[in-house]
Amino acid sequence: MSGAFKNCQTVLVTGANRGLGLQIVKSLASGDFSPGKIIATARNPDAAEELRHLAEKHPNIHVIKLDVVSQASIDHAAAEVGKLVQEEGLNCLINNAGINVVANFETVTAEKMLENFHANSVAPLMITKAMLPLLKQAAAKGRGMGIHRAAVINMTSLLGSVELNWGERANNFKWYPYRTSKSALNMVTRCMAVDLEADGILCMAIHPGWVRTDMGGPNAPLSTDESISSVLSVIGGLTEKDHGSFLHYTGEPLPW
Amino acid sequence: MSGAFKNCQTVLVTGANRGLGLQIVKSLASGDFSPGKIIATARNPDAAEELRHLAEKHPNIHVIKLDVVSQASIDHAAAEVGKLVQEEGLNCLINNAGINVVANFETVTAEKMLENFHANSVAPLMITKAMLPLLKQAAAKGRGMGIHRAAVINMTSLLGSVELNWGERANNFKWYPYRTSKSALNMVTRCMAVDLEADGILCMAIHPGWVRTDMGGPNAPLSTDESISSVLSVIGGLTEKDHGSFLHYTGEPLPW
Ligand SMILES: NC(=O)c1ccc[n+]([C@@H]2O[C@H](COP(=O)([O-])OP(=O)(O)OC[C@H]3O[C@@H](n4cnc5c(N)ncnc54)[C@H](OP(=O)(O)O)[C@@H]3O)[C@@H](O)[C@H]2O)c1
Ligand SMILES: NC(=O)c1ccc[n+]([C@@H]2O[C@H](COP(=O)([O-])OP(=O)(O)OC[C@H]3O[C@@H](n4cnc5c(N)ncnc54)[C@H](OP(=O)(O)O)[C@@H]3O)[C@@H](O)[C@H]2O)c1
Repeated sequence: MSGAFKNCQTVLVTGANRGLGLQIVKSLASGDFSPGKIIATARNPDAAEELRHLAEKHPNIHVIKLDVVSQASIDHAAAEVGKLVQEEGLNCLINNAGINVVANFETVTAEKMLENFHANSVAPLMITKAMLPLLKQAAAKGRGMGIHRAAVINMTSLLGSVELNWGERANNFKWYPYRTSKSALNMVTRCMAVDLEADGILCMAIHPGWVRTDMGGPNAPLSTDESISSVLSVIGGLTEKDHGSFLHYTGEPLPW
Repeated sequence: MSGAFKNCQTVLVTGANRGLGLQIVKSLASGDFSPGKIIATARNPDAAEELRHLAEKHPNIHVIKLDVVSQASIDHAAAEVGKLVQEEGLNCLINNAGINVVANFETVTAEKMLENFHANSVAPLMITKAMLPLLKQAAAKGRGMGIHRAAVINMTSLLGSVELNWGERANNFKWYPYRTSKSALNMVTRCMAVDLEADGILCMAIHPGWVRTDMGGPNAPLSTDESISSVLSVIGGLTEKDHGSFLHYTGEPLPW
């Protein structure tokens, strides 16, 4: 991904204290062309030791508190980000924070469905709404579409593909709340792509692969570095043609 | 649709006090081959005048109280239905009740997203779970797949298609809560199709067309009768090949 973000001045990543979010911050900070401001949000920055150590080494990392399911926290974070980026605006918003409320047909409840939907589908929408003035500010300066201008990237999952939830594949992960939340996130992504197009803000959803994190578990085939180096290359290369898309971390389109 | 339900003994329709739900009950009751038991549920049966008059004329219509977003109400209704159908079980569950919490990008809130998701995506799942013993009972007696055996029909919408939410079409209905809830319902449908297959229970999602109801409004091209006569023909003709599908009211497959 070296250089993929060279035209991106400001990037924000949610859920940056561990897993894929932390790896995104690490990889961006250590790249040849590191964005001017890497805004790493975490719901509890005081407990985010690794992230804080990283921020001590890299002065372009800024840690901001954000609980993605709290509107007050979103509004507060948006104000903080505004002060930080000033007239630069925000080039790239990566909605990465997510949860997997594991439940199958027998164990699923309305509460579990609602909890996962709130964190994975609603939060990215509410965060994008709150950051819109900053995304517009960045977009006003550029032409074409991509992270040199303004982009919203939603970290979705292959498990959110309704089409692929069939046959062999379907029998592995019978997670009603998670699958449903990611299908819903895909629709949110597509709705936002339609609405943000006029402002020149690219919007898409990406599947990071199956990765060894707390969520992905120890048996996943990819390390966070392998996943994220590919994910960042794909994000760095996004153009108009990828607006409203659902891509695999390798860059191939996935079916809804 | 005349005769389409001739092999179906027991059918349950949610949201049967008005709109498409009421029309389903009307059309089934007046068909040449009316199911032995048409269970019409309504959140407030006392206020469901038209439905009660219909039930007075047709002794095979049974009105049961069901608020689809209340687990207590679902459990209570399932017990009532069990008493009513006895060892016959339930051949066809039509999850029809739904709401449209209208909101665009500017006006959408987390609360609106959660409310629509609960009613349109979570409720059909929780109702199907509660009715599962009755669906299994009916399925145990048949072979193949279809409403002669056991089927779960989810009333979805074309607006839940992520694929079709693009270009011209996308600009008409920018309804975040509704669109998202129907995409989520499509994933729930597909998950249930995977899980209920072993019991021989068919599961699919159908779009009724754009219909003149309180939800569809006065400018919709279809009358409830036009929509439902076609919907019931499609449901009546469902076989194995339609398991896990997303169909237009005309019977054609729709993209997720
Ligand atoms: N790993 C995989 O194989 C895989 C595959 C497909 C998609 N994904 C997606 O990739 C994203 C990252 O996954 P991951 O594997 O890195 O998961 P993870 O290791 O479980 O980390 C999840 C991150 O999200 C944060 N988060 C959860 N709820 C939050 C809230 N309310 N407010 C703020 N932050 C919150 C967590 O913060 P706390 O530490 O405070 O909980 C943590 O930073 C998720 O959206 C996931 O669905 C992962
Ligand atoms: N009309 C269209 O053009 C169209 C197009 C695509 C899909 N659909 C879908 O078709 C289905 C029926 O739509 P419609 O046009 O008949 O809508 P409608 O005229 O607005 O009727 C909605 C029905 O759902 C019931 N309902 C809502 N929330 C409920 C709850 N918590 N508990 C129990 N019942 C509840 C309503 O009962 P109350 O009277 O108690 O509110 C009413 O019976 C919906 O799922 C809708 O999304 C409709």
